Amino acid sequence: MNFTLDQLLSFTKNILIKIGCSEKDAATAADVLVSADLRGVDSHGVARLSGYVRLWEAGRINPTPDIKVVYETPSTAVVDGDGGLGLVVAPFAMQVAIEKAKTAGTGWVSVKNSNHYGIAGIHAMQALQHDMIGISLTNASPLVSPTFSAERLLGTNPISVAIPAKTQPPFVADMATTTAANGKLEILQRKGEEAPLGWIQDKEGFPTTSPYGVRDGGALLPLGGDREHGSHKGYALGAIVDIFSAVLSGANYGPWVPPFVAFLQPDPNPVGEGLGHFFGAMRVDAFRPAEAFKENMDTWISRFRAAKTTPGHEKVLIPGDPERELEAERRAYGIPLIKAVEEDLRALGGKFGVIL
Amino acid sequence: MNFTLDQLLSFTKNILIKIGCSEKDAATAADVLVSADLRGVDSHGVARLSGYVRLWEAGRINPTPDIKVVYETPSTAVVDGDGGLGLVVAPFAMQVAIEKAKTAGTGWVSVKNSNHYGIAGIHAMQALQHDMIGISLTNASPLVSPTFSAERLLGTNPISVAIPAKTQPPFVADMATTTAANGKLEILQRKGEEAPLGWIQDKEGFPTTSPYGVRDGGALLPLGGDREHGSHKGYALGAIVDIFSAVLSGANYGPWVPPFVAFLQPDPNPVGEGLGHFFGAMRVDAFRPAEAFKENMDTWISRFRAAKTTPGHEKVLIPGDPERELEAERRAYGIPLIKAVEEDLRALGGKFGVIL
Repeated sequence: MNFTLDQLLSFTKNILIKIGCSEKDAATAADVLVSADLRGVDSHGVARLSGYVRLWEAGRINPTPDIKVVYETPSTAVVDGDGGLGLVVAPFAMQVAIEKAKTAGTGWVSVKNSNHYGIAGIHAMQALQHDMIGISLTNASPLVSPTFSAERLLGTNPISVAIPAKTQPPFVADMATTTAANGKLEILQRKGEEAPLGWIQDKEGFPTTSPYGVRDGGALLPLGGDREHGSHKGYALGAIVDIFSAVLSGANYGPWVPPFVAFLQPDPNPVGEGLGHFFGAMRVDAFRPAEAFKENMDTWISRFRAAKTTPGHEKVLIPGDPERELEAERRAYGIPLIKAVEEDLRALGGKFGVIL
Repeated sequence: MNFTLDQLLSFTKNILIKIGCSEKDAATAADVLVSADLRGVDSHGVARLSGYVRLWEAGRINPTPDIKVVYETPSTAVVDGDGGLGLVVAPFAMQVAIEKAKTAGTGWVSVKNSNHYGIAGIHAMQALQHDMIGISLTNASPLVSPTFSAERLLGTNPISVAIPAKTQPPFVADMATTTAANGKLEILQRKGEEAPLGWIQDKEGFPTTSPYGVRDGGALLPLGGDREHGSHKGYALGAIVDIFSAVLSGANYGPWVPPFVAFLQPDPNPVGEGLGHFFGAMRVDAFRPAEAFKENMDTWISRFRAAKTTPGHEKVLIPGDPERELEAERRAYGIPLIKAVEEDLRALGGKFGVIL
């Protein structure tokens, strides 16, 4: 069944108001959360709403946070999220980065004491309207094993970079630093299919194709899959995201990152506060005139789009193309939710007296 | 045969003086070039010296460049390398980033009109002594096909990030954004071995295991190898490196990047000037006290080192470990050069009257 954007926005906002968020924060958070459904990243959208609510029930989300800058220089800041929803903390911190960039040329903000912030890309894209390049990183619950490790020490730690163009749509990369995101395993489980080798390892650290490998104590693998195919590079990227997000800010890092699921307890001896993010904004005209840059981006994009393709493929994509195409389709025809998610939302609505 | 560090440094410096570099520039360039041999990245060290000389013979290296900042804001700059050796331009530009960071908290420098800059890591590591995080990116001659492309549109476009710790050695990631670097193909060719699937594709864009695949008109593949294993992520990373290095500075990007080999001509209709780099320096104490940060880095590193390993592996490595171990070994016992490289250097020395 398809839902309109407004239905999902208003339902999400009303649920968040019920758990104590201000009208403004609830609207901000709903925009961020539902942007994932709109852009086709279904695993990070309203499917997670009841997960956030369970975290709040467990006392691990502060619905009325006092989010603030606790340290700064002309081009940097550290933001304390006060245990709020990452969906609210992240837009605040990205705005700080943008303001810094207006005067210093660039702005870089590391965030502590936050929670899951939805899709990385939507925060990076906040910079585009200012003719800035936006960067968004976050650490996450440990589900990923570094190369040669049988333990889960990193999250799927995404990297997003959004770059404006002139007549072409913007370049928007938004990717987990693993071979495959966790959401893809859920899809395989529903279809009863095996996972390709290189996506996951089992509890002992052997390669496995079981889509239940992670659930059964195994781990997702860093981008590359195995050492021979460069998994040490995916591991290094995930590590950089972790360090920028949490060691620079004073949040929890590595295996200490608090789990997203409320039934798992955070480590009783944390090494920092909450979970961490990192944001960057670079004013294009802090390097060269914005028009010249954007014209060159158009040339870059057009040249890549025009490339001769490999057999069986119609076109070379620019990062952000698939999400933008899905967004256009879903704005026109509505957002499809799978039955399990729809039922979960209706149950949540029933509990709080909010109609979907 | 093993050579001492001083032998290779002095030989390289004297050759560069012979092609017209100042004593100071030649020493800087020799330090950068030989650091690759020292750290075990043999493909980027003295093995390339005669390649640089051939570029100079072709009139494509300016041995006495006037390298300068042509635009700046408090935290950014664009550097024009004036066609100089990247080995000289890069340390200059990284120093500009470091100086910016001293006052603005961070410094970000995009470079145009440069040439090949050696290994990415050595430039990022320049930041460590200042308790800064260093970042170094560069574009390079097109040898890599984006996902679904049968054309070579990107270089191996490396990413390096160097992060200081306290008692632990620094974290130093330095990686091509491809599954495997070009140098690994040369090793397979010498050994007469096949390449793993996922490293290269042939001229038509079909996967191939021939180590001559790239030489025969094929391409290296982005990190991930194929779409199912996330090659669109490696492609996006390589693209980001290209755009930061060249579209931000006004250098050539994508397929227009001038080839490193002198026997291939640069595009007669370039879209920018020379080849591009991008450098970043972030003062750790622009976020939190440097001691607290470095202590947390020690905890991070120790925890990852202590991880339970997968079957058959002794330890989990921290990015930079293998290169640091090789450096210690080579400082103690000398730097081994394969026969072909030694002969090439001796021929070069003979031509210029410099003794190896």
